[in-house]
Amino acid sequence: MSHQQRFSTGLEVRRACREGSLSGPTAGLAPGYAQANLVMLPADWAFDFLLFCQRNPKPCPLIDVTAPGEWSPPVTAPEADLRSDLPRYRVWQHGELIDEPADVHRYWRNDLVSFLIGCSFTFDAGLKAAGLPVRHVEQGKNVPMYRTNLACTSAGRLHGPLVVSMRPFSAAQAIRAVEITSRHPEMHGSPVHLGFPEQIGISKLDQPDYGEAVPVHPGELPVFWACGVTPQAVLMASKPPFAITHSPGCMFVTDRLDRSLC
Amino acid sequence: MSHQQRFSTGLEVRRACREGSLSGPTAGLAPGYAQANLVMLPADWAFDFLLFCQRNPKPCPLIDVTAPGEWSPPVTAPEADLRSDLPRYRVWQHGELIDEPADVHRYWRNDLVSFLIGCSFTFDAGLKAAGLPVRHVEQGKNVPMYRTNLACTSAGRLHGPLVVSMRPFSAAQAIRAVEITSRHPEMHGSPVHLGFPEQIGISKLDQPDYGEAVPVHPGELPVFWACGVTPQAVLMASKPPFAITHSPGCMFVTDRLDRSLC
Repeated sequence: MSHQQRFSTGLEVRRACREGSLSGPTAGLAPGYAQANLVMLPADWAFDFLLFCQRNPKPCPLIDVTAPGEWSPPVTAPEADLRSDLPRYRVWQHGELIDEPADVHRYWRNDLVSFLIGCSFTFDAGLKAAGLPVRHVEQGKNVPMYRTNLACTSAGRLHGPLVVSMRPFSAAQAIRAVEITSRHPEMHGSPVHLGFPEQIGISKLDQPDYGEAVPVHPGELPVFWACGVTPQAVLMASKPPFAITHSPGCMFVTDRLDRSLC
Repeated sequence: MSHQQRFSTGLEVRRACREGSLSGPTAGLAPGYAQANLVMLPADWAFDFLLFCQRNPKPCPLIDVTAPGEWSPPVTAPEADLRSDLPRYRVWQHGELIDEPADVHRYWRNDLVSFLIGCSFTFDAGLKAAGLPVRHVEQGKNVPMYRTNLACTSAGRLHGPLVVSMRPFSAAQAIRAVEITSRHPEMHGSPVHLGFPEQIGISKLDQPDYGEAVPVHPGELPVFWACGVTPQAVLMASKPPFAITHSPGCMFVTDRLDRSLC
């Protein structure tokens, strides 16, 4: 039985994480269930981060927020435990990565607020459902992601660069992709750029800052969307004393179907 | 020269407020410029309120938020002074209305965070632009608003009932109104109910809790949208020690055109 077939719901994925039998990437698991980026911050940074998300809805489409000290996301998976139900975490101090554990019970603090942010896995499913070929999915790769020279709108002590993901499309496909994604502001919305990577500070398309490169064929436009990795770049730039995030690719799988978030 | 003609931009309306020459309702002033509901709260309530808006996007579509102690909304009118640039304010202590002044310099505190929330004046302009007759506008009245038995999703210490506005439409018009407003989540989005007022706790359509009654003709459906007055009902229910809001109908007029918010 394949890895994918073993998990048909968010609950099954989360249970495997909690039991320690799943500690790797979640791409393709529990098809149809929305996956999310995780950011945990102390309560005295929570207003700044919530405001950052409000001011930067394209990279940070919030789908759930806990009260301080609560570890269950009330809207998207009220029975879950965010301290153990992801495959792998990253722990940050003053913007430096200090640990990458499989659960964060020993790092838990009663003042932590957890934020769940929409993930591009859902996004790719939407493009595919509309008949658009998504190259990195076809090639079995992680999407290529780039740090840009575009600054996010800062909020209090939080500032940093916009990180984008890239998908190559023909002109007609690119137009269709704008149409489709513009209808889903809850999932990064329409592209932030297309056509000229150097205009947004990307010099080498074949050397992404995160994920894996994919070929852009002659006659294709690279199309760039705001990416949920942006908060991690913002934490590195803004250096809050303490933060926990998911490890790249190791997302939180919710109880909500992709479609219910649209 | 009519009242309306005197003001063609948000800046002109705000200047008249600041100089003391305008202290009444803003409906119809500076056509095309987005107007907003105002809520000011101390910083230690700001996270709860921001989270309340995130969890209740239909009644509370946030269009701008200041940092603590700042009186200029950075996105929608960076040169404005929220302490003086509305016609009239309401000042609240522990959920009780204590004053209704024309400026709030004497109530200002350095820990206040200001929230601007989309207003149904913009919403009515969108319906009208789509060719739908909006009865209260035709009759020169304020829109009828009702407290419902639907609870908002609470956030920290903030809780309270959903307040809705009502517009009567024929069946075909109601369907069209759902289509149009569903495209504008930034402006209350699609209706929360239609057809049966008693199902949401409204017993007398001709006795609204806020605004003025309008007739619903035989064969018409009353259509209900979440309303920006909801935060005031929430402040009355949740009783924060201190808050300032706009006075009903006396909105903040921004520099942004209605269309730029869509």
